[in-house]
Amino acid sequence: MIQPRKVVMPNPSPRAVPNQINPPQRLLMGPGPINADPRVLRAMSAQLLGQYDPAMTSYMNETMELYREVFRTENEATVLIDGTSRAGIEAALVSLIEPGDRVLVPIFGRFGHLLREIAERCGAEVHVIEREWGTVFTPGEIEAAIDKVAPKLLAVVHGDTSTTVAQPLDELGAICAKHGVLLYTDATASLGGNTFELDAWGIDVATAGLQKCLGGPSGSAPISLSARAVDVINSRKSIEAGIRVEGDAVSSSPIRSNYFDLAMILDYWGPKRLNHHTEATTMLFGSRECARLLVEEGLPQAVERHRLHGAAMATGLSALGLELFGDQNYKMNNVVGVEIPDGIDGDAGRAAMLNDYGIEIGTSFGPLHGRVWRIGTMGYNARRDTVLLTLAALEQMLRRGGVSVTGGSGVGAALDFYESEGDAA
Amino acid sequence: MIQPRKVVMPNPSPRAVPNQINPPQRLLMGPGPINADPRVLRAMSAQLLGQYDPAMTSYMNETMELYREVFRTENEATVLIDGTSRAGIEAALVSLIEPGDRVLVPIFGRFGHLLREIAERCGAEVHVIEREWGTVFTPGEIEAAIDKVAPKLLAVVHGDTSTTVAQPLDELGAICAKHGVLLYTDATASLGGNTFELDAWGIDVATAGLQKCLGGPSGSAPISLSARAVDVINSRKSIEAGIRVEGDAVSSSPIRSNYFDLAMILDYWGPKRLNHHTEATTMLFGSRECARLLVEEGLPQAVERHRLHGAAMATGLSALGLELFGDQNYKMNNVVGVEIPDGIDGDAGRAAMLNDYGIEIGTSFGPLHGRVWRIGTMGYNARRDTVLLTLAALEQMLRRGGVSVTGGSGVGAALDFYESEGDAA
Repeated sequence: MIQPRKVVMPNPSPRAVPNQINPPQRLLMGPGPINADPRVLRAMSAQLLGQYDPAMTSYMNETMELYREVFRTENEATVLIDGTSRAGIEAALVSLIEPGDRVLVPIFGRFGHLLREIAERCGAEVHVIEREWGTVFTPGEIEAAIDKVAPKLLAVVHGDTSTTVAQPLDELGAICAKHGVLLYTDATASLGGNTFELDAWGIDVATAGLQKCLGGPSGSAPISLSARAVDVINSRKSIEAGIRVEGDAVSSSPIRSNYFDLAMILDYWGPKRLNHHTEATTMLFGSRECARLLVEEGLPQAVERHRLHGAAMATGLSALGLELFGDQNYKMNNVVGVEIPDGIDGDAGRAAMLNDYGIEIGTSFGPLHGRVWRIGTMGYNARRDTVLLTLAALEQMLRRGGVSVTGGSGVGAALDFYESEGDAA
Repeated sequence: MIQPRKVVMPNPSPRAVPNQINPPQRLLMGPGPINADPRVLRAMSAQLLGQYDPAMTSYMNETMELYREVFRTENEATVLIDGTSRAGIEAALVSLIEPGDRVLVPIFGRFGHLLREIAERCGAEVHVIEREWGTVFTPGEIEAAIDKVAPKLLAVVHGDTSTTVAQPLDELGAICAKHGVLLYTDATASLGGNTFELDAWGIDVATAGLQKCLGGPSGSAPISLSARAVDVINSRKSIEAGIRVEGDAVSSSPIRSNYFDLAMILDYWGPKRLNHHTEATTMLFGSRECARLLVEEGLPQAVERHRLHGAAMATGLSALGLELFGDQNYKMNNVVGVEIPDGIDGDAGRAAMLNDYGIEIGTSFGPLHGRVWRIGTMGYNARRDTVLLTLAALEQMLRRGGVSVTGGSGVGAALDFYESEGDAA
């Protein structure tokens, strides 16, 4: 039956229609999100494809291959989770953890607390060890805790932007292997801008996001899983009723989430192409371009670029008289913390940077709030011009706020640093 | 300590770098995803903003207001979930359901099975009633099941694209209110193209996605919650440890997911602006534009546009000699099912449409696979030219496949229909 023509009455209470998106120009020099590489945004403007269009599945396969290079792995199971970096963390943890499993979380910043929180919601028996913010654990401290707790899973943040330091992971894989422990790491803030070697370090599962060194928008979470992790997850596989056929797996302890069920997500990305969610095509296009640009540049080259500009920023900030926060031996390449000088209100200083210069710098969480600013140099914004502009504006903001600053000290030190590094622009 | 300059060796095993995204031109006339409105893709190419930039939080507030109009509600709690439509479903169910809660799911297609599956993973005691695919339930049938099961929650799909029919919801709110039952509906496939009245129908929670009548890419899930639903969810609130301060809520039965914890997500979108995930800015820009375009057109006008072009498509398909699938009294405006004619292989026919004409039509799931094609007219593709082009190409494909077709029958009937409706192009 064809539905009859409907007489459409005018909308009785039309709401005002706001204008098109037209964001003010910002230079995002906080701990992320940062400005997206314009090439990533252009890739995201491509028209959509059907979910099983051969062109679409080819793009999915290429994306898997590109992220293998970004994670430095041969893992077949290297895909995207359709959500922000936090979605990637939850997909990893809820798929690995069965209620009652023991999980060890070394906490050295805000995102360690997040891992604990998510693992607890997965029903894990979570044990934590804690370190003062700005410091990291020795491998021995972590092994001692593993000895004591005998966890199924060690879940640890790599670079924690809340403290600007990165936990060294290179010895943890061997320790975990020795104790039969799975090793998960959240590499959201570090990947692409700091050395990260998934296979060489023996990491079982790593997740990331686009909004830091990858130079894209938040909303897609790359993940890579070792064969051992995939086995653990597949042992819990349940094909959902709506598409289940005779003989398909039905688990007695299914993964608690459908959306984050990596067993099903891997069947969707793998040769079976079993329908799960409708892939977020535009985010996939962006995610693919983030990785494509990194692979084109070369991962070691991208890490070196982050080191260079991160060090130039830190040098300039020191020369402005600001004290750097945290153990600088473990500083991430892409973000630096500075103590807010006496007499300056942290939020007012940030507001002045934003309103007067269009530059965003970061506040801090928890014990560091009001005490530390965080300044990033990552992804598309790991550049000489962004470093020098930020230092120039900071000098003006500090002076205006009553701090005694030597004119040109920050920019001068950074320029000298670039010269000493042979980067004479 | 400034990290020493690193001598970067060439990448030892560089992978081949694939080309930029350059998808083939497709006209997506399946059950979704469909082609995005180019204005939505343009909005998504805007540069990013910081998470708490006043411009960003203004866009978030405008997005809430726009989706109130799209859902036809005054619900304050109207926000986006950062994930595909399935993420919206899971956020609603995991936030509402405590393990052991009774949930009633009337199933009349694939996506009813999905609601059951997700509710089961949330730990619910799920009761289902089932109907043959292509039919819908009477309100009396649903009320009888409520009487028997006494659920906390009724979870029902509005339009199920797997069968092309929509369950009438207008009487269910009153029934649920009478029995003290919460009413959740998945409006992913229907919203914007079919009458939907959240407040007038007494719906507690509805979720959607962009990739159907809203004319955007998958990856953002609008959701709206009644005050009653918000109360249920807030009674389970736990602020996460990383940002918890003295006096903050810690629940004894916290929501099982962190990412989908609507109590926290509402605090992020609300005046507290409590940090949760990093909002997927580009998807938010797209989601806002989808709603902005619908509100600009007017919701009743958009529904009428979907009725007009959906009816023209159905008229043309019938005139081509194809039998329409399902109870046409309850057909969704935006998608139609047709029985695949004898002698035609369904997948080969779809491949011919894609490869010869660049037009995608849909296959089916479960009992309808190989038996029914699904053809959509929704969002940006609910247009006269797309209807006529699809009918013209289908005629050629059917003839080439050996089906006897009267030349011009489909297009002719659609043109006549448009004329009879006063839409003479």
